Amino acid sequence: MKLKFHYHELKLRHPFTISRSSNSVKPCIIVELEHDGIIGYGEAAPSERYGENKDTVQKFLGKVDLSHFSSPLLLEDILDYVGGIESGNTSAKAAIDIALHDWVGKKLGVPVWKLFGLNKDKTLTTSYTIGIDSIEMIEKKVIEAEQFPILKVKVGVPNDEEIIKTIRELTDKIIRVDANEGWKSKEQALDKILWLEEQKIEFVEQPMPASDIDGTAWLKERVHIPLIADESVKQLSDIHNLDGAFDGINIKLMKCSGMRGMFRMIHTARALNMKIMLGCMIESSIGISAAAQLSPLVDYADLDGNLLIKNDPFAGVSVMNGKLVLNDSPGLGVNIR
Amino acid sequence: MKLKFHYHELKLRHPFTISRSSNSVKPCIIVELEHDGIIGYGEAAPSERYGENKDTVQKFLGKVDLSHFSSPLLLEDILDYVGGIESGNTSAKAAIDIALHDWVGKKLGVPVWKLFGLNKDKTLTTSYTIGIDSIEMIEKKVIEAEQFPILKVKVGVPNDEEIIKTIRELTDKIIRVDANEGWKSKEQALDKILWLEEQKIEFVEQPMPASDIDGTAWLKERVHIPLIADESVKQLSDIHNLDGAFDGINIKLMKCSGMRGMFRMIHTARALNMKIMLGCMIESSIGISAAAQLSPLVDYADLDGNLLIKNDPFAGVSVMNGKLVLNDSPGLGVNIR
Repeated sequence: MKLKFHYHELKLRHPFTISRSSNSVKPCIIVELEHDGIIGYGEAAPSERYGENKDTVQKFLGKVDLSHFSSPLLLEDILDYVGGIESGNTSAKAAIDIALHDWVGKKLGVPVWKLFGLNKDKTLTTSYTIGIDSIEMIEKKVIEAEQFPILKVKVGVPNDEEIIKTIRELTDKIIRVDANEGWKSKEQALDKILWLEEQKIEFVEQPMPASDIDGTAWLKERVHIPLIADESVKQLSDIHNLDGAFDGINIKLMKCSGMRGMFRMIHTARALNMKIMLGCMIESSIGISAAAQLSPLVDYADLDGNLLIKNDPFAGVSVMNGKLVLNDSPGLGVNIR
Repeated sequence: MKLKFHYHELKLRHPFTISRSSNSVKPCIIVELEHDGIIGYGEAAPSERYGENKDTVQKFLGKVDLSHFSSPLLLEDILDYVGGIESGNTSAKAAIDIALHDWVGKKLGVPVWKLFGLNKDKTLTTSYTIGIDSIEMIEKKVIEAEQFPILKVKVGVPNDEEIIKTIRELTDKIIRVDANEGWKSKEQALDKILWLEEQKIEFVEQPMPASDIDGTAWLKERVHIPLIADESVKQLSDIHNLDGAFDGINIKLMKCSGMRGMFRMIHTARALNMKIMLGCMIESSIGISAAAQLSPLVDYADLDGNLLIKNDPFAGVSVMNGKLVLNDSPGLGVNIR
């Protein structure tokens, strides 16, 4: 089993600004796992928020030695080994998990969604993200997003109300908002959310700092739209701590080390009657196609990371009026452009 | 997609007695799911404890119409449909789930353990069950169980101590005990368990009535060996209610509607740091082989239901010095004897 990887800089169509950061490029490491004449593709999209960057990913991948495994079909053993090399490094681990799933699908001659027993007609409609920007640019982005029936708007800045009012005047589409931990007190968050409710916002993602679970629980008792955890939930073991504070969770491949972790988290959240969103980082079509395979299992999809870049090295899942469209090719259905 | 089923009466080698019942035969309904020239086998082993019997299973299976599904690969949709026909009926639902997994494995040309990404070298050693009986018969059964390094002993009767002493005098093997809700007060259970600890018992299964979670939590604070839930846990949504009362759970295909439910429960229990046992009813080699496929993921196996009968209609997983041995045949690896 051979593992190769290389760095690819993803160039954003527009600078991507959220409450804590702004970028015009984002890192991505493409992984190729070769065995038996079949190549499985994977991707790491590291996030500084979780202590990763392009160097940590490449350093981690350099330590991975798969030569003692006889086949990528030994998924559980391989991922146990990779998981044990070092803690953290979840996007680097996700890259290997994704490549393994692509390989297995190709080897067995079926798309990965079929391996998971799913129906590709039941993929969801993804939201399209409107980052923080000048009011003029926000207006421009909303018009560009014409084909998407659901918008996810980044807030958590002083002029949140101005941003939302601008968008609401342009459209009556479903709007979700993501504060990315941007509101600093529970009282401020409560004021913001009660106002957002009047603007017919569907739900609010990560209103408070990740570790402020008590503050979020206080908030949940006082608001009327769902609160969805993002930064507060990385992996399986985090979920039950959120019961009572959040109505749902945003699961991302790059936080939970890949598709196997995602599948496990989906069912654990279901066991707690939580709503489930599949989200993403700024990623190529490899990562987005991987997450899209599991979207028939969940309630909300926010899988537009590949749509926000202008040099996607791969093609895979496509979008038709916002709906994710999976193909029938074996594996993840991704190909080099 | 065609579904056929027929009743088969499983004849026990010895009458099987636990704290609440005694039987010399047990019901089993064999399911055949045919599509595309491939037959997937499944099995329902209904338990009166959960409101099922051979008639309820056959009545339920008679209502299942799979003609509107294009392929057994649509596992999630099919199981959603079957799950929605009527509540309960978990063994009947398991029969369909198991047959679907067997079919999918055969269709894709791989054993089911490989579909789940597992390593068959990591199957567990199953315990062998010693039912309640006369002291003479218990001695005979312990000697018969020579090849099994782990015994699971049924208790929950007035002479528990006599039973355990008899076995401990014969062997220093690992012994687990299962009270099957047989102890009626927490004080009685505490006395029993403190005495069992002195006999070097590995863990105790279901010491108290299923619904007495508070009593079990009281007990857990006072004992030093793990308490494992069986009757207290049927499906995914039950697990988080047990946190703080039990150290682990016994997952059975016939309680949780099949392999997909079992896989989901395994990961949800892991998220709560619970120990996991895979258990069974008195079942043919179809059900036991299905559960054995997932045993590399868990801590304890109690998969001996097929070993306790003398007219098993199928052959599948075998046992070598107690260790479950999976084969490499596509699907569940079961064949008509």
